[in-house]
Amino acid sequence: MPDQSTIAVDAMGGDEGLAVMLAGVAQAAGRHAGMRFILVGDELRVAEGLKKHPSLLAHAEVVHAPQVVGASDKPSQAIRRARTTSMGIAIDLVKKGRAGAAVSSGNTGAMMAMAKLSLRMLPGIDRPALAAPLPTLGANDVVMLDLGANTEVDARNLVQFAVMGAAYARIIFDLESPRVALLNIGSEDQKGTDVIRDAAQALRDATLPMTFTGFVEGDKLARGDHDVIVCDGFAGNIALKTAEGTARFVADLLKRAFTSSLRSKFGFLVSRPATRLLRDHLDPNNHNGAVFLGLNGIVVKSHGGASANGVATAIGNAAKMVRADLIRRIADDLGDFSKPDIGAAA
Amino acid sequence: MPDQSTIAVDAMGGDEGLAVMLAGVAQAAGRHAGMRFILVGDELRVAEGLKKHPSLLAHAEVVHAPQVVGASDKPSQAIRRARTTSMGIAIDLVKKGRAGAAVSSGNTGAMMAMAKLSLRMLPGIDRPALAAPLPTLGANDVVMLDLGANTEVDARNLVQFAVMGAAYARIIFDLESPRVALLNIGSEDQKGTDVIRDAAQALRDATLPMTFTGFVEGDKLARGDHDVIVCDGFAGNIALKTAEGTARFVADLLKRAFTSSLRSKFGFLVSRPATRLLRDHLDPNNHNGAVFLGLNGIVVKSHGGASANGVATAIGNAAKMVRADLIRRIADDLGDFSKPDIGAAA
Repeated sequence: MPDQSTIAVDAMGGDEGLAVMLAGVAQAAGRHAGMRFILVGDELRVAEGLKKHPSLLAHAEVVHAPQVVGASDKPSQAIRRARTTSMGIAIDLVKKGRAGAAVSSGNTGAMMAMAKLSLRMLPGIDRPALAAPLPTLGANDVVMLDLGANTEVDARNLVQFAVMGAAYARIIFDLESPRVALLNIGSEDQKGTDVIRDAAQALRDATLPMTFTGFVEGDKLARGDHDVIVCDGFAGNIALKTAEGTARFVADLLKRAFTSSLRSKFGFLVSRPATRLLRDHLDPNNHNGAVFLGLNGIVVKSHGGASANGVATAIGNAAKMVRADLIRRIADDLGDFSKPDIGAAA
Repeated sequence: MPDQSTIAVDAMGGDEGLAVMLAGVAQAAGRHAGMRFILVGDELRVAEGLKKHPSLLAHAEVVHAPQVVGASDKPSQAIRRARTTSMGIAIDLVKKGRAGAAVSSGNTGAMMAMAKLSLRMLPGIDRPALAAPLPTLGANDVVMLDLGANTEVDARNLVQFAVMGAAYARIIFDLESPRVALLNIGSEDQKGTDVIRDAAQALRDATLPMTFTGFVEGDKLARGDHDVIVCDGFAGNIALKTAEGTARFVADLLKRAFTSSLRSKFGFLVSRPATRLLRDHLDPNNHNGAVFLGLNGIVVKSHGGASANGVATAIGNAAKMVRADLIRRIADDLGDFSKPDIGAAA
């Protein structure tokens, strides 16, 4: 049984590194009373960094890691240094039961490879998928997966992603039968690739605790019509990043529009409380923390460019998953689910 | 030599059908003096519809088409009815030289199949790609292709798309050496699929009138750092539609924010001229009209849900391409370009 109140944090990962990670942990400690942290990284540098967060000392211990996984390290390189890097050691603390979850802002490919090797897959799952809830206009967010762990998939992988995504949505949104759709370039049955059409057929034929809603196009992701959207990691990554980039693009244009005249500047100042709420709603730091589903343990990927607030959000999400007993519940769902026969699967 | 001042319009296509198409042609006629139109569709219904646009009679003739391509018709079905459908006949008018371009809001797959069969490909091109300029924060728009004509491609296809996209960008943006990037899920050389990495290698090795700028991620499409973005039709369609959907999503949230209190409502009213400019800038109807590059003739796809203004924009873009002698200039570029040897190509 893992220590449910402890989160292992790779203190060295992310574009900004140590300072932002520690500031994030300090924010999370302030938000969640009773939570404990294991900070994994260069002992001396972490101790130095902790001087800025003296209140954290009561809630955190430090585990030394002599090395760091680089942003452009290949997964195969990273695996060879699993026992000496901050990322590898943080994941290993989950395996050993010393932490309920590991959180890192580092290299996604390396994290997936290390987590797969150390924690192993749940029975019946071939590959992990990176999943995260995204904002919508509806009553709840939408879980999207895979967001970049698997660039190429077969129909069987997509079906497994659907089952894992539905289990995750049932837990975080408290739904009986989540509405699950496949991302595609059209809503008609004949649209898309063979892989997508085969996965759709399998999902239509299977009896699962989900409602399969067919295909969804890129312009309808945020409408709140679905609870889970399933795709390969290439399409998922393109969609997620295009959505982020477009939201920022519109915000930039809006800023230009509002500062284009004295009159519009005045109007903006008057409306500021409302636009501030909107900014908070769209800020990726308020939606940070994607989880690798399918592993025998909780590993959460924080955005490389996350702020301290973003890191704290990711840690909070990891803690929620631990409390909800995510892994056991997904494993139960997978046990209930008899794999459909997918002709086209490799 | 095609009749450069005449555009053939499939009057029956699109989600809204005849009324919107005719209203769009009428708007285009008002904007572009001297332009002539051939309206292809059910003779009686077109004549009836023209009663609402009497001024158009001086600039348009009607060519009868007894049938219409349906939204869910397969390309193979559509091809068999090329000689009797409004879409097929409009494309054939380009082949016969009676029109400089054909414009339709109908079924994309059917349009591509019919256009390929009727007009044939330019020498050296294996498949057409759907291309359109999209708004950015930079000095000019960015041409993106393929937007949905080819769900699966090889490295050779991507290289050809890059050459065609660059030729198109040189013409519409008046650039010497457009900056061309490949859409990918990371900027590092080892990211993505074999197909994308092979295409990148070929573009690095080739001497072409373009500047190959490497990989671009989904969150950086609109920053104005590139003039052409190349991808397969699946990723392109997902990116384009996700961008459209996200822009609409942000606009909806903004509307909610602005109407959330009396104070913000007042601020919105004051800023209205500025937000109206923004809305115009983002309205897809002001960017309508994707072209099938690689064909021996100009065929423009208007968005199925385009308004009359959107249809007029697509017609205006088609006319610009005719005047710019797009096909000859792309053919010249392709002639200069000696195909690189792509090991991985099929």
